[in-house]
Amino acid sequence: MARPTPLSGFPEWLPDGRIVEQHVLDTLRRTFELHGFAGVETRAVEPLDQLLRKGETSKEVYVLRRLQEDAAAPDRGDQLGLHFDLTVPFARYVLENAGHLAFPFRRYQIQKVWRGERPQDGRFREFVQADIDVVGAGELPYHYEVELPLVMAEALGALRDIGVPPVRILVNNRKVAEGFYRGLGLDDVDAVLRSIDKLDKVGGDEVARLLVAEAGASPEQAAACLELAAISGDDATVVDRVRALAASRSVTHELLDTGLDELGALIAAATVRAPGVVVADLKIARGLDYYTGSVYETVLVGHEQLGSICSGGRYDTLASDGATTYPGVGLSIGVSRLVSRLIGGGLVRATRSVPSAVLVAVTNEDARPQSDAVAAALRSRGIPVEVAPSAAKFGKQIRHADRRGIPFVWFAGEAGDEVKDIRSGEQVPADAATWEPPADDWWPRAEPALS
Amino acid sequence: MARPTPLSGFPEWLPDGRIVEQHVLDTLRRTFELHGFAGVETRAVEPLDQLLRKGETSKEVYVLRRLQEDAAAPDRGDQLGLHFDLTVPFARYVLENAGHLAFPFRRYQIQKVWRGERPQDGRFREFVQADIDVVGAGELPYHYEVELPLVMAEALGALRDIGVPPVRILVNNRKVAEGFYRGLGLDDVDAVLRSIDKLDKVGGDEVARLLVAEAGASPEQAAACLELAAISGDDATVVDRVRALAASRSVTHELLDTGLDELGALIAAATVRAPGVVVADLKIARGLDYYTGSVYETVLVGHEQLGSICSGGRYDTLASDGATTYPGVGLSIGVSRLVSRLIGGGLVRATRSVPSAVLVAVTNEDARPQSDAVAAALRSRGIPVEVAPSAAKFGKQIRHADRRGIPFVWFAGEAGDEVKDIRSGEQVPADAATWEPPADDWWPRAEPALS
Repeated sequence: MARPTPLSGFPEWLPDGRIVEQHVLDTLRRTFELHGFAGVETRAVEPLDQLLRKGETSKEVYVLRRLQEDAAAPDRGDQLGLHFDLTVPFARYVLENAGHLAFPFRRYQIQKVWRGERPQDGRFREFVQADIDVVGAGELPYHYEVELPLVMAEALGALRDIGVPPVRILVNNRKVAEGFYRGLGLDDVDAVLRSIDKLDKVGGDEVARLLVAEAGASPEQAAACLELAAISGDDATVVDRVRALAASRSVTHELLDTGLDELGALIAAATVRAPGVVVADLKIARGLDYYTGSVYETVLVGHEQLGSICSGGRYDTLASDGATTYPGVGLSIGVSRLVSRLIGGGLVRATRSVPSAVLVAVTNEDARPQSDAVAAALRSRGIPVEVAPSAAKFGKQIRHADRRGIPFVWFAGEAGDEVKDIRSGEQVPADAATWEPPADDWWPRAEPALS
Repeated sequence: MARPTPLSGFPEWLPDGRIVEQHVLDTLRRTFELHGFAGVETRAVEPLDQLLRKGETSKEVYVLRRLQEDAAAPDRGDQLGLHFDLTVPFARYVLENAGHLAFPFRRYQIQKVWRGERPQDGRFREFVQADIDVVGAGELPYHYEVELPLVMAEALGALRDIGVPPVRILVNNRKVAEGFYRGLGLDDVDAVLRSIDKLDKVGGDEVARLLVAEAGASPEQAAACLELAAISGDDATVVDRVRALAASRSVTHELLDTGLDELGALIAAATVRAPGVVVADLKIARGLDYYTGSVYETVLVGHEQLGSICSGGRYDTLASDGATTYPGVGLSIGVSRLVSRLIGGGLVRATRSVPSAVLVAVTNEDARPQSDAVAAALRSRGIPVEVAPSAAKFGKQIRHADRRGIPFVWFAGEAGDEVKDIRSGEQVPADAATWEPPADDWWPRAEPALS
């Protein structure tokens, strides 16, 4: 077999990169669990017709076929595809298990998803997402729209100490936008949102042209939409500025008032609980038409061109079985996009490439059981240890540790054991029943890569 | 959308079942890391031609196709399939990254795999495996064949306290079998192994017939093979019994001697390090032809009919790039098979269905920020907390906690906070800056289900 080459769009990490990724996953999980989110894992596949319900993602779906299956195209109803997000499977899980779940149901879900897209920087065909959602049966209070982005702010903030840049969570409220547009006389709200969504890509002049051409706006209406989109800020004045703009254009709408109350409440809470992180940005549209309230996007400060690493919003109908409708609010972190930047951009590194804090040397093969006994004694106190592969010269055994970043080599001797810190060269007597490594050396850690 | 029904062969758990599964996964990971195995995760897909190299598993592979892809069958070389185990992807990963890995390379890998098999009890189409392997570049000492099953014994033994039954690891050595058959004059070793592998299914008489019909054995040779297969035991006498059988049949072969030395060393080490767990069983054949030394199968005591939950062996050629051959030894736990039995068989249960130890009640919506502040104070000391969804009557808020198994409800009051253990009804004054739940209530735990 010739040396294989990587598959574009399917990222994999070397063991030290995996330590960074695992630290990110562990940190997210811990934060989610501290906030009472229950972990759920769903199967990787869903019936194809369920995956295609929204229509627009059809080009991205990977369809499955058993190799020995009849090659004649089976009924689409029986076909399975890999999930392309964790929202569609979660909605199905909620419906399937509604009788066994307690609502409002708080869940986190950390899994791989697949999209048959053309791979490019920050876009993969296989990647890990970390989602939190709260779902109600029939109703879901607004305060969850305040809570969830703050949980994400805390989760991402907990990664600051390993070298992850600060994040900025951009929020908007679909009701503000819709109320403003309708109050302005623009009723094709989706068309307006689609045009505004292109602002960062094509610029204001082109969006103004699109609003006229595709959303039926007059030049004045288009200008007002762009004025709204230009408003942003992280304190209560942002709501005042929207109100002032609306007043200057004689725009009034009940949805606008409701939306501004909600947006104001979110900003007020964020000022207390995550100062400087949450910014109202009235141009955030989110392409997906199922959002009905708050919408969120998140950028890594200094890496804005990477795109959003954590997005989501409020949707009044996550799922419905006819009798009951399940509204929800949730956000999804693009873990692979984030980790790829942390590793590829040289922001974070692992302190070593293996778990072992100690390599127990082997004096000769007949004495291997003594080395195994030392290892067992250390492990029984939670210290990660491996035993040397062969009774080579000690210099070679030390190099074995050095190549892996293992900081300590243990020598079991007739006259008593000794342990060597191979970084300093210091070697001291030690007892496997009591010795411990320094806390920083105990397990491999992710840390800022000060290059 | 009508209520969906489960897909056969794709197991999913309710949140309390997921807590059991997560405990199993965390315990395995911790044990593997204590033994110095580095975590690796590979992509879910491999080129189809790599997946089919062994031939025999072709019927089980799920092939991927992008929905919009040209329906004309693409070149097989470009096709991707879902991996059906973690060995094929690991072999590819080793070759692809050989220049960046330090050998012998110890890795664990815990991931889902997919097989398009007909689902039945204990057999799934999607399931989680947890693998450990040690791989050398060019050579790999025998002592790893002793070490790895003992790591698995420790990992599975660490699950005893949540109610997992004890395990029995059955070991054999391919060299013993091959040496004995060759010494007996039977040179079609694969044919003999294939027949012996059916012993549990079809019985001794039928295997004797197969050995004559398909492996070219005389009735006497067939009888000798069956006598070898009948030998088992957990101490050194098992090796003596094989030697005695060989002597009685005038069987000698260098491979037999080597194999018996190895098997004896494994049993001797197991007697010290995992007493009663490892049993030499000379009928263990393992169908796969790439094993070249030790082979392992593991049964849950009392659940033998479930089949092996942890299997593996030594292979002299895990991978080869022409210049270097990579021998390895490894075992794989069928986590889903195990967890499915633990949950479905009522052996293990979770102490609650959500992470939260505390529900902070809300007196009225205006006072929600006070409840949020209590929750934040508790979380800052690592206590999992959620805040009540609405300012309903306290009785309803307590029922909210009770339905989820949350043991404590917190009441923030003007005159000081109080916390209620809703199991005993005891309510006491408490300070969010210092109060802690009992250790057993802190996080949800998996525990024996004493039904």
